[in-house]
Amino acid sequence: MSRFLSQRFSQIKPYVPGEQPQDTEYIKLNTNESPYPPSPRVLQVVNQKEVEKLRLYSDPEVKQLIQQIADFYQVSTDQVFVGNGSDEVLAFSFMAFCDQQQQICYPDITYGFYQVFCQLFGLQQNPIPLKQDFTVDYQDYCDCGKNIVIANPNAPTGLSLSLEEIEQILKTNPDHLVMIDEAYVDFGGTTCIPLLKQYSNLMVIQTFSKSRSLAGARLGFAISSPEIIQDLNKIKFSYNPYNVNRLSILAGSAAMQDRLYWEYCTNEVIQTRNKTKCALEQLGFTVLDSKTNFLFARCPKISGEDYYSKLKQNGILVRHFDQERIQDFVRITIGTPAQMEQFLQVTKRLMEEETQ
Amino acid sequence: MSRFLSQRFSQIKPYVPGEQPQDTEYIKLNTNESPYPPSPRVLQVVNQKEVEKLRLYSDPEVKQLIQQIADFYQVSTDQVFVGNGSDEVLAFSFMAFCDQQQQICYPDITYGFYQVFCQLFGLQQNPIPLKQDFTVDYQDYCDCGKNIVIANPNAPTGLSLSLEEIEQILKTNPDHLVMIDEAYVDFGGTTCIPLLKQYSNLMVIQTFSKSRSLAGARLGFAISSPEIIQDLNKIKFSYNPYNVNRLSILAGSAAMQDRLYWEYCTNEVIQTRNKTKCALEQLGFTVLDSKTNFLFARCPKISGEDYYSKLKQNGILVRHFDQERIQDFVRITIGTPAQMEQFLQVTKRLMEEETQ
Repeated sequence: MSRFLSQRFSQIKPYVPGEQPQDTEYIKLNTNESPYPPSPRVLQVVNQKEVEKLRLYSDPEVKQLIQQIADFYQVSTDQVFVGNGSDEVLAFSFMAFCDQQQQICYPDITYGFYQVFCQLFGLQQNPIPLKQDFTVDYQDYCDCGKNIVIANPNAPTGLSLSLEEIEQILKTNPDHLVMIDEAYVDFGGTTCIPLLKQYSNLMVIQTFSKSRSLAGARLGFAISSPEIIQDLNKIKFSYNPYNVNRLSILAGSAAMQDRLYWEYCTNEVIQTRNKTKCALEQLGFTVLDSKTNFLFARCPKISGEDYYSKLKQNGILVRHFDQERIQDFVRITIGTPAQMEQFLQVTKRLMEEETQ
Repeated sequence: MSRFLSQRFSQIKPYVPGEQPQDTEYIKLNTNESPYPPSPRVLQVVNQKEVEKLRLYSDPEVKQLIQQIADFYQVSTDQVFVGNGSDEVLAFSFMAFCDQQQQICYPDITYGFYQVFCQLFGLQQNPIPLKQDFTVDYQDYCDCGKNIVIANPNAPTGLSLSLEEIEQILKTNPDHLVMIDEAYVDFGGTTCIPLLKQYSNLMVIQTFSKSRSLAGARLGFAISSPEIIQDLNKIKFSYNPYNVNRLSILAGSAAMQDRLYWEYCTNEVIQTRNKTKCALEQLGFTVLDSKTNFLFARCPKISGEDYYSKLKQNGILVRHFDQERIQDFVRITIGTPAQMEQFLQVTKRLMEEETQ
């Protein structure tokens, strides 16, 4: 820490991203990336001619991409905001809509960044415990007097709230913003975008990093009321007007247009996930009911940390969270069928070694 | 404005970027982009194989690019921080190092974003007037009791402080951070990176958007003490750990390695600038002594706004700032020799029309 850092950041604990080894060849099941490359259309549009145009700024209004997102979700373009990853969209939202008076609450076990944003923007932490079975109790959020952010499906549990439950939360909090982070919704969840027609206090946040196979392009978006989108633009244009780069705008637009490929990839992941879940259960694992591109699983024989380490020794990266209540679990991203086969074989062998 | 926006942003006036027409064919001399494409090496590394890898997150530590920047400027890698454009680097710096107690000052006529950041982060505005001849008086900043941000060369004037003057500012403000924004330094200014060896209160900020022909890739960086860089990383990892996308990391690394091409492009721009300046002066314009890739010029016959409009009607975009003291001027980005020839022809014709 330098002697110049503002006092308010002296205690901040930044987010710790999953390992991103740049050199070794792991089977990488630790950061919920897609095992499939981006749509072939992305490869067509990100071409040499466009690389030459990098000398020019990107469109600060991101019109082309916003149009594609609006078309896909059948909303109007003034209901869409695009950020440099959904982390930036969330950061802008915490900054814009929360302060000492207007607090925000979220589940105690969820995407770790929500509490980091609270630290960054000097907000009180308001975690609400999950139920014993790791589900979100929607009633905890009804009429709660605060802004709300819920990942649905939740991470790292993979569990999902129903649209009816979310509607109850929206209905009972008319004067507070309800942000639903749908990073994983395309793998079996239900988007609450249709609820925007009735609820002006709803903001839906999605990402291109999972179901659109574009984690490395850094694209996330919010869909909400035009007034809320206007507020987000106020922050963006006061922070970094050219927040989305040229090639990512092209890549995202092409990916959004290729509905068939998106359906194909998400279906593949869902099928592989369901098979992997069955196989793990047969080995005695406890596996939560995932609606995402990962499984949250508890090993019957060794601790979560040990299981993570032994998998790593065998060239397989998964994610372990050293947090109370979930430290017995690991989070396993769904890879290709071949990768999951190898993962299962290693796991089986590890279990057999424990028995001996 | 939605009813959810935090009160503190109700009056915020976002930055207004230069026009970025996406459809019409203008000679675009309004946002200080390079007229030359990125290095041929950039085209080699941003290839189809890498586009396929967009399914994977980028390296949050941006190691490859940081190594290239460190090598180029002969500093150590822990002295380099990379952001999604230098606007993000500046935003993180204002956030990290300024608050109600630790204020910041800057010239009254300079990059318009500094005052926007003050608004965004709730800081007092402390503009210090330029001298009558539009130069920064370095003595105004000596022992000033505040953090300091100075664009050197300054925008939109193009004028530059000497290294000796900057050293006086550093020496007399040992307990305050001095940020030197060198966005335009490669076009004839002198970087103060060597002063880092003696002054731990110095931060130098540069961009890939001008001399590296990569405005559309969104890359900026800071070079400072390891402690200050660590602080910036604390903010980044609490805000958006994957702030730089995969293709931009590759593009930036390749551009930084191609020293010859960078020298070629900057020299071309400098020569074209000097020729254009002479030609404008022959037409009676007042042209400030630019060390940048633009000229700041006052038309002898019509107002700055009129000149801007008439150029636009003739397919040439320049930038006009509706701000006291400089509203008679326009800022003209240096394009290719052919573009500047056309710009001069149009200007000559406009001047002749005025005489008749």
